Amino acid sequence: MTAMKDSAQANLENLYRIFTVPEAPESTLGSIDQAITDNLAGFLQEHIVAVERDLDEIEADFTRTDIPEQPSFVSDYTEFVKQKLVAQSVHTASPGFVGHMTSAMPYFMLPLSRIMIALNQNLVKVETSKAFTPLERQVLAMLNRLVYNRDDAFYQRWIHDSQSALGAFCSGGTIANITALWTARNRLCGPDGDFQGIAQQGLFAALKHLDCEGLVVLASRRAHYSLGKAVDLLGIGRDNLIAVDTDDNSRIDMRQLRNHCSRVQSEGKRIMALVGIAGTTETGNVDPLEEMADLAEELGCHFHVDAAWGGPTLFSDTHRWRLRGIERADSVTIDAHKQLYVPMGAGMVLFKDPAALSAIEHHAAYILRHGSKDLGSHTLEGSRPGKALLVHAGLSIIGRRGYELLIDQGITRAQTFADRVSTHPDFELVTAPELNILTYRYNPSWLQSVMAQAPLDKVKEINLILDQITQIIQKEQREAGKTFVSRTRLEPARYHGETITVFRVVLANPLTTDEILGAVLREQCELAQQEGLQERFEALRTLAASCRVERVAL
Amino acid sequence: MTAMKDSAQANLENLYRIFTVPEAPESTLGSIDQAITDNLAGFLQEHIVAVERDLDEIEADFTRTDIPEQPSFVSDYTEFVKQKLVAQSVHTASPGFVGHMTSAMPYFMLPLSRIMIALNQNLVKVETSKAFTPLERQVLAMLNRLVYNRDDAFYQRWIHDSQSALGAFCSGGTIANITALWTARNRLCGPDGDFQGIAQQGLFAALKHLDCEGLVVLASRRAHYSLGKAVDLLGIGRDNLIAVDTDDNSRIDMRQLRNHCSRVQSEGKRIMALVGIAGTTETGNVDPLEEMADLAEELGCHFHVDAAWGGPTLFSDTHRWRLRGIERADSVTIDAHKQLYVPMGAGMVLFKDPAALSAIEHHAAYILRHGSKDLGSHTLEGSRPGKALLVHAGLSIIGRRGYELLIDQGITRAQTFADRVSTHPDFELVTAPELNILTYRYNPSWLQSVMAQAPLDKVKEINLILDQITQIIQKEQREAGKTFVSRTRLEPARYHGETITVFRVVLANPLTTDEILGAVLREQCELAQQEGLQERFEALRTLAASCRVERVAL
Repeated sequence: MTAMKDSAQANLENLYRIFTVPEAPESTLGSIDQAITDNLAGFLQEHIVAVERDLDEIEADFTRTDIPEQPSFVSDYTEFVKQKLVAQSVHTASPGFVGHMTSAMPYFMLPLSRIMIALNQNLVKVETSKAFTPLERQVLAMLNRLVYNRDDAFYQRWIHDSQSALGAFCSGGTIANITALWTARNRLCGPDGDFQGIAQQGLFAALKHLDCEGLVVLASRRAHYSLGKAVDLLGIGRDNLIAVDTDDNSRIDMRQLRNHCSRVQSEGKRIMALVGIAGTTETGNVDPLEEMADLAEELGCHFHVDAAWGGPTLFSDTHRWRLRGIERADSVTIDAHKQLYVPMGAGMVLFKDPAALSAIEHHAAYILRHGSKDLGSHTLEGSRPGKALLVHAGLSIIGRRGYELLIDQGITRAQTFADRVSTHPDFELVTAPELNILTYRYNPSWLQSVMAQAPLDKVKEINLILDQITQIIQKEQREAGKTFVSRTRLEPARYHGETITVFRVVLANPLTTDEILGAVLREQCELAQQEGLQERFEALRTLAASCRVERVAL
Repeated sequence: MTAMKDSAQANLENLYRIFTVPEAPESTLGSIDQAITDNLAGFLQEHIVAVERDLDEIEADFTRTDIPEQPSFVSDYTEFVKQKLVAQSVHTASPGFVGHMTSAMPYFMLPLSRIMIALNQNLVKVETSKAFTPLERQVLAMLNRLVYNRDDAFYQRWIHDSQSALGAFCSGGTIANITALWTARNRLCGPDGDFQGIAQQGLFAALKHLDCEGLVVLASRRAHYSLGKAVDLLGIGRDNLIAVDTDDNSRIDMRQLRNHCSRVQSEGKRIMALVGIAGTTETGNVDPLEEMADLAEELGCHFHVDAAWGGPTLFSDTHRWRLRGIERADSVTIDAHKQLYVPMGAGMVLFKDPAALSAIEHHAAYILRHGSKDLGSHTLEGSRPGKALLVHAGLSIIGRRGYELLIDQGITRAQTFADRVSTHPDFELVTAPELNILTYRYNPSWLQSVMAQAPLDKVKEINLILDQITQIIQKEQREAGKTFVSRTRLEPARYHGETITVFRVVLANPLTTDEILGAVLREQCELAQQEGLQERFEALRTLAASCRVERVAL
C-alpha cells in the first residue's frame, strides 16, 4: 500500500486499496506472514528477544496517545510491530516456558484461524453465521458427551433444538464459570406464584421471596479467582463465597464443607451452589467430585465443576477415573485454549439439563427472535467469532486418542519431573502432581533436615528467607529468557498452614522434554549460587545453627 | 500430515508432526490459506454458495456427537470445511450484505491476525504478554482520548499506571456495557463505615445500607438488549431497567426520562445509571447526550454511553457534533469489530476517571498480584488474546483521517439511499439516517396516500398485511443470496406507536456502491411482484377501496 496523498479523491482510492488489494508476498507484512506459515517455531525463536527488558523501558515505545492524523504505510507499521512488539513479547509456545497454561500449537490451527477470520461470521445470530451455528451446537454436544456420556437418542433430540442448549460457547473459562453461576442463581430464584423470578425482579425481591438472608456459594480455597468475580457481579457478594480448607492434596475437605453448609443454613442463608474443581489452577488437583455430588444432591443445590484445566483428562482411558463424579455436575466449564490446544480466547460451559440455560434466555426484536436458532439468546456475550471451528478441528484431526496421548504424556512427564525434584539434593517438592501440574522450591537438603526438627518460629523465619530466594530465582530465570516457571503461594500442611512461595510448573506442551526440564533445574541451581543471594544463604546457615544449638540445649 | 498408525510410537511421532511440521503449500489447507492471502474477496465469492439452503438441511452435516476415536488427515478435514462449512457460511463482507453491522475488512488485518495468533499471548498477565500489555494500555488511552480529549499530561500520568485503568478491553460491546454498569453499581454501593461494599457483602446488604428498595437503570426503549442482560446478571432485575419512550427520531424523550426518574425516586428506589445511546442498533440514532449528562449530574448518578456502533463518528470533523456530550459520560462503550473494521471479537469500555475500575478490582496469589501491571485485575474476562494489536494497527495505518473518510462516506451514502427510497414510488422511508443506518419498507405510493387518510382500524389492518409482505421479501432476498437487508420492528409516530416490520440497512462497508443499493431495491420490487404475494396485495387493494368508500360515505 502507498501512503495516502493529500487530496480527497486520492485518499479515497488509497482507502479502497486497503480493502481490496492484498499485501504483496514480497512486502514486509507479506514476508512475515509467509515466514510464520513456513516455520512458526523458527519465526518465534528468531524474532522474540529472549532476554527480558524492563517493562518501563518497553512502555516507552507505547506512550503516544493521540491517534495519528495521517495514514501510515503498512510496511512501516509492520517494522514497528516486528521490532517493538513481536521482539518484546513472550515465547509462550516455547518448550521451556512451563510456567503457565500455554503450549505449542498444532500447525493446522493457523490456516484454519485465517479461514475463520476471513469469513468473519458473527455467531450471535443465524443470519450472520449460518453453518457455523449448527457447527457450534455440534461442538457443544461433543463436549457435553465427553462429560455426561448420554446416549445417541439424547443428543439427536437436543443437539439442534431451538428451545434448548447443551452448553454455551464463550471467550474463556471466566465467562463460562459466570454463566454457570448466573444460571444456578436464576434457577434457584425462578418465577414462583406472584414472584416473577430474579431475572425480572432482582436479587432483593428474590431473597425476600425465598425468605432468606443471602445466597452462598462454596468452593475450596484453591478455586479460581473467577468465582470471586462471579459472586461480586451476580450481587451475591464475596463474603458469601465460602473458601473451604483443603486436605494435604489441595482437595476440598468434605468435613469442613459440610460444617460450613450447616453453619450458613443456620444463619438463614440459602446454599446456591457447590463448586468442585477438576484441576486446580495452582496445583492441578481434583476435588472429590463424587462426594460433592452426593452433598449437592442432599442439599438440593446446583453442582458446578470448574474443569477449565482438567476437563480434557476425560479423553484418557488411564486417567479418566480421577474426575469420577463430574458426570453428576449440573454444569461443567472446559477451556478450549488450554488442553484442547486452541488459540487464546475460547471456552465452554456444558449443562446436564438442556433446559437449564433458559433461565438466562433473552430476546430482541431485530435479533434472537423467539423460536429462532440464534445462539445469542443463551450466551452472556453478544457478537462472537466462529472459534468453535478450531475446537471442531482439534477434535476431528487429533481425535480422542490423540488427545489421550497428549494428556497421558503430560501426566507421566510431571511424575518423572516430580521424582527428579524430590531426589535432587537442592530442591523440595511441595505438591506432587495429580494431573500435570506440580510445585516445588529451591531448598537444600541440609536445610530441609533442619526444618523438619526446628521449632515453629525458626521454621517461619527460614521460610521468609526461602520465599525471597524463590522469588528472586523465578524473576531472574524469567528475565534470562531461556526457561520459565511461574510462582505462587501455598499453605502446605508440613509447615502448619503457613504460606510459602513456590515454583509452579505446568506440563502440557508436547515439545517439552525431560532434558529441557533438567535444564530448568540446572539454571535454578546456578541462579541460587549467585553472589546476590549469598547473604540470604548465610542468614539461613546462621538460623540453622541456632536451631541445632537449641536442640542440644533441650 | 499422514494419518496416525496404530502403534504407540507411531502415534506419538504423528502427534509431534502436527505441532512441528507446517501444512505443505500444495496441501488442501495450504492452498486455501494461500488463496485467502492472495485474494480474500475472490475466495469468499468463489466458495460461499450464494443461494441459501435450509438450516435443517445444513444441520444434517453437523449431527455427529461422539468425538472421533482416531485422528483424521488434515486434508480430509479441510475438504469437509470447504464443502460443508465455508460453502454454507454467510458472505458478511459482501458489499450487498447491508443488513447487519459487518463489513469488508482491510487486508492487513489478516496477516496481522496471524501474527497475533502465532504469538498466542495471554493479556491477563504481563508474564504471558509483556509488550502486549503496554500496547493494550496505549490503545485504551488513544480511544479514551478520542472520547474525552484530555491533555497530554493527563495521559502521560495515567497511561501505564499500575493502580489505574483508562478502560478495559474485552470480547465485545456486551461485556463492555456489563463492565460499565458493574462498575457503576459497585461505586454507588462502595465501602462506607461498617458497610464493606457491595462487592464484599452483596446487593441485599447494599440496599439495606443505602436504605432503598432497589437500584434503577434508565435508557430509551431503543437501547441494546445487552442492558437487559446486564441488569439481570447484576441482580438489579429487568423490572428496574426502565425503557423510556423516544421522540420521532428514536431519541430518548427527556421529559419522560425526568418523569420516570421522579417516579422511581418517590418509590424509594435509587437511580444507579442513565444510559445514553450513540447509534441505536436498529436505527442509528443518537440520544441527546448533553441533556442526559446534565440530568445525571443533577441526580448524582453514573452516566454511561453505549457508543458501540456510533463511537467512531468522533473521527469525523463533519459529524462529531452529533455525539456532543459524550465527553461528559462516566463510561463509554466502543466496539472495535464494528466501525473500527477489526475482525469479530473486540470491544472496549473507556472510563473518564482512571480510578473507576478499582471498584471491580480483583487479585489472586499466582497472578494479578497487587501493584503489578497485569491487565487481568480490571477486566471481567480472564485469559484474553492480544486483539488490541488489530485496533492499534487500524488506528496507525488508517489514521484519523482514513476513519473520517469511512464515516463520512457511510453517512453520505445512507442519506443518498434514503433520498432514493423516499422518492421511489414503491417504498416508504420509515426512519431517516442520522448516522449510517436507515429503515424502510415496501409500500406503494397509492397505498401510502390511502393510509394517510384512513381510519385507525384500517391502518392497523393494512400494516398487518404489509408486515407479512416485508417479512417474506426479506427472507426471500436473503435466501436468494445476492443482497441482504435485515428486518426489525419499530413503532413510528405516524402510525400512532403501532409496531410495524421494516427493512433495516447498515451502510458501513466502503465497497457498497449506490449501484448495489439500486439493485437491492430492484430485487425487492421484483420479489413483491411474485405470484405468492398477489393475494396479499389483492387484500390491500380491497382494504384501500373500503377506506375510500368510507371517506365518501363520511
